[in-house]
Amino acid sequence: MNYKQIASADIDFLVSVCGTDRVYTGKAINEDFSHDELGGVSRMPDVMVEVTSTEEVSAIMKYAYDNNIPVTPRGQGTGLVGASVAMHGGIMLNMCRMNHFLELDEDNLTLTLEPGVLLMEISKFVEERDLFYPPDPGEKSATIGGNINTNAGGMRAVKYGVTRDYVRGLEVVMPDGTVMELGGKVVKNSSGYSLKDMIVGSEGTLAIITKAILKLLPLPQKTISLLIPFPELEMAIETVPKIIKSKAIPTAIEFMERDVILAAEEFLGKKFPDNTSDAYLLLTFDGNSKEEIEKAYEKVAHICLDSGALDVFISNTQERHAAIWSARGAFLEAIKASTTEMDECDVVVPRKHVGEFVKFTRQLQDRFNIRIMSFGHAGDGNLHIYVLRDQLDEQTWKQKLHDVFEVMYSHALELGGKVSGEHGIGFAKKPYLNDSMGEYGINLLRNIKLAFDPKNILNPGKVC
Amino acid sequence: MNYKQIASADIDFLVSVCGTDRVYTGKAINEDFSHDELGGVSRMPDVMVEVTSTEEVSAIMKYAYDNNIPVTPRGQGTGLVGASVAMHGGIMLNMCRMNHFLELDEDNLTLTLEPGVLLMEISKFVEERDLFYPPDPGEKSATIGGNINTNAGGMRAVKYGVTRDYVRGLEVVMPDGTVMELGGKVVKNSSGYSLKDMIVGSEGTLAIITKAILKLLPLPQKTISLLIPFPELEMAIETVPKIIKSKAIPTAIEFMERDVILAAEEFLGKKFPDNTSDAYLLLTFDGNSKEEIEKAYEKVAHICLDSGALDVFISNTQERHAAIWSARGAFLEAIKASTTEMDECDVVVPRKHVGEFVKFTRQLQDRFNIRIMSFGHAGDGNLHIYVLRDQLDEQTWKQKLHDVFEVMYSHALELGGKVSGEHGIGFAKKPYLNDSMGEYGINLLRNIKLAFDPKNILNPGKVC
Repeated sequence: MNYKQIASADIDFLVSVCGTDRVYTGKAINEDFSHDELGGVSRMPDVMVEVTSTEEVSAIMKYAYDNNIPVTPRGQGTGLVGASVAMHGGIMLNMCRMNHFLELDEDNLTLTLEPGVLLMEISKFVEERDLFYPPDPGEKSATIGGNINTNAGGMRAVKYGVTRDYVRGLEVVMPDGTVMELGGKVVKNSSGYSLKDMIVGSEGTLAIITKAILKLLPLPQKTISLLIPFPELEMAIETVPKIIKSKAIPTAIEFMERDVILAAEEFLGKKFPDNTSDAYLLLTFDGNSKEEIEKAYEKVAHICLDSGALDVFISNTQERHAAIWSARGAFLEAIKASTTEMDECDVVVPRKHVGEFVKFTRQLQDRFNIRIMSFGHAGDGNLHIYVLRDQLDEQTWKQKLHDVFEVMYSHALELGGKVSGEHGIGFAKKPYLNDSMGEYGINLLRNIKLAFDPKNILNPGKVC
Repeated sequence: MNYKQIASADIDFLVSVCGTDRVYTGKAINEDFSHDELGGVSRMPDVMVEVTSTEEVSAIMKYAYDNNIPVTPRGQGTGLVGASVAMHGGIMLNMCRMNHFLELDEDNLTLTLEPGVLLMEISKFVEERDLFYPPDPGEKSATIGGNINTNAGGMRAVKYGVTRDYVRGLEVVMPDGTVMELGGKVVKNSSGYSLKDMIVGSEGTLAIITKAILKLLPLPQKTISLLIPFPELEMAIETVPKIIKSKAIPTAIEFMERDVILAAEEFLGKKFPDNTSDAYLLLTFDGNSKEEIEKAYEKVAHICLDSGALDVFISNTQERHAAIWSARGAFLEAIKASTTEMDECDVVVPRKHVGEFVKFTRQLQDRFNIRIMSFGHAGDGNLHIYVLRDQLDEQTWKQKLHDVFEVMYSHALELGGKVSGEHGIGFAKKPYLNDSMGEYGINLLRNIKLAFDPKNILNPGKVC
């Protein structure tokens, strides 16, 4: 692609929009901005700009469009597929200063905010007001803009669905600088193709989100967690379809293995309530009365015990509940800390195939002689499987990683699965999306991209 | 647009695919296929084909694409905006024979079916199995294909959301005959732009749905309805934001006026439980225990009485509940039967503005000296407002309708509303979508349409 190289006149323009304090070039750009959380994909932007308003984003996009300069929007950089890395250099828009709550509308149960607000800030803000924003990805320091751009799911998707289900409206800046309002505070909408739903999950390639209107729910008054040890992982996971079939609706159903728990204990320096069994299910139930929740979880506890569970630990205080979930929240960091480098497979499969798929990935450990750790959302079929480099040399690591991923992704597709459940395609997973969609499908995605961004200046080289 | 005229060789091809029994031409095509439920837009297709399989749809689309023949897919024709009318003639694909349930997957709580299955058949099928498909549009004889194509909402959107939220996967035939699988049985998905969500609400203009995978829920064990009379409509509607703010979540909140109830009584030949008050709210609550529901509705009943309600009638038997809701289901037909012709405005506004908007439309009755009746979904802001022709001559009717709609739609936009909540744009509402999206937005929609359908042969002349 033939982009204009950044020159001093371009920097002058950016300074004229944002002032010198918020425009960074060369060594003044922190190295962190060259990669995301996983780090396998890296490139420095030529210039990094901290934007603070829709007007600034619009002015910069118009300039970039007129001058054919690539632009990469970026939130907290917590992604795992390189979506926020400036693969073609150019301008990086750091959205983190656009981090204000704009309006809580209690009549419509909506929250309007800027894209740089962090997930942890949202939950604090709404829960203090007895309201609830259900999507709950593990990475609480991600921005809501990033979550919308990957259609993040998180733990509570079993009961509450994913980010898409809570995005009522968006303000976006198009690649040529035009500002559009998509959706709104309305509950229903059938007014032309759903541009809002095209932006959700588009990883910053179609438009830049500058404002979001989120749907809120009343905060459930009670929450309880069950930690259920099993003698082996397959037995734990095979219990999940039985729970779903029983018509109980837990808020979350996570699975975890002993080695991941041990890694988290070491990482956090804290003990997990139990680490003596090979595998665990962690379930949460929420509702408005103790009786209502008890009825639901007692049924599920019996199903688990009948399916071979060794025990059922109930966490009915806020402290114990928080302790378990903070350990769960540290799994990714803990695994990362246990090795030199890693890469991740974020497939989603129909939930009745989760057991089969996890078993399959365990066999790959022996077949390829490489360490593989996994945890994930047993209740919604979304698995996070980490392939660990440990002491492998660069060439062996790249080759093994490639081979393991090929086998893993193709097996997921055979089971009716998808390449990514919630982390997206970005740069790193493009070959697997290509394989799964075929030439026709990828061309369709490319044509949609061109409908939004005819000059291909917005986050180029990503998704398709 | 320069389409090929249907010739005898084209008919021969269609007969070679479907046999003579399912290919209709000329007078053999029932006049019903020239229009939809509202009837204001009409045109006969040149040929109507009853398709029975994905393979037939694919073969016909490939032929139509190669030969530049327009194709209009059609379900039950219950639409209200002309979306299923063959505005450019050509081939009409009648999808109604593709009406089979394909798979109920209880491990994944999904139902896979063909697009011609009727809404009333779905609810019967799943409820007999103690399962639940929440979307509940008034027109139960619509097909699920039509519902997906308009992203229909219905009564229960307050608690459960709209059709989009329950479409997990689609099989579609693209305009050139290519068959694609979009989404699947998976709960989460972040694998490229959401083509599935682009098809939902696209009114048969981007691809033809040949299979759908729907998400189901466990059937709530108890349902209760409250019919709440108010001395005047504004008072009734202004109570709704208070209900939402109280953090109760009714399944449905409908409003209705006395004259609509009287029309329904006459139309059905049955009495409504009460018709003595000017206005009513009709609320439903569902849940798994009597106690749980009682707690919720008692709070709401008090809010209503404190806000001026005259009484609260509770329907806690299945019979009484069904009686009220069957009357509610007949409103559209009843209004239609009370006049010579009508047209409808299906705007959606933020729910706190519903009262203001309904009051505004009532003032238009006097201002334009024309009868206007309305009912709708007070809980989600989606209004169905009918402008009635009565004895007006053709020219006066067209002029008044135009003037009233101009004023109505532009006021809805001022309030942050959208042109259509659930009936779509089709042919009839294009000018209002144009006004609301502006040139830039409409061009974007057109470019997306061309990405899917470069020859513009699929349902041309609709949406944008």
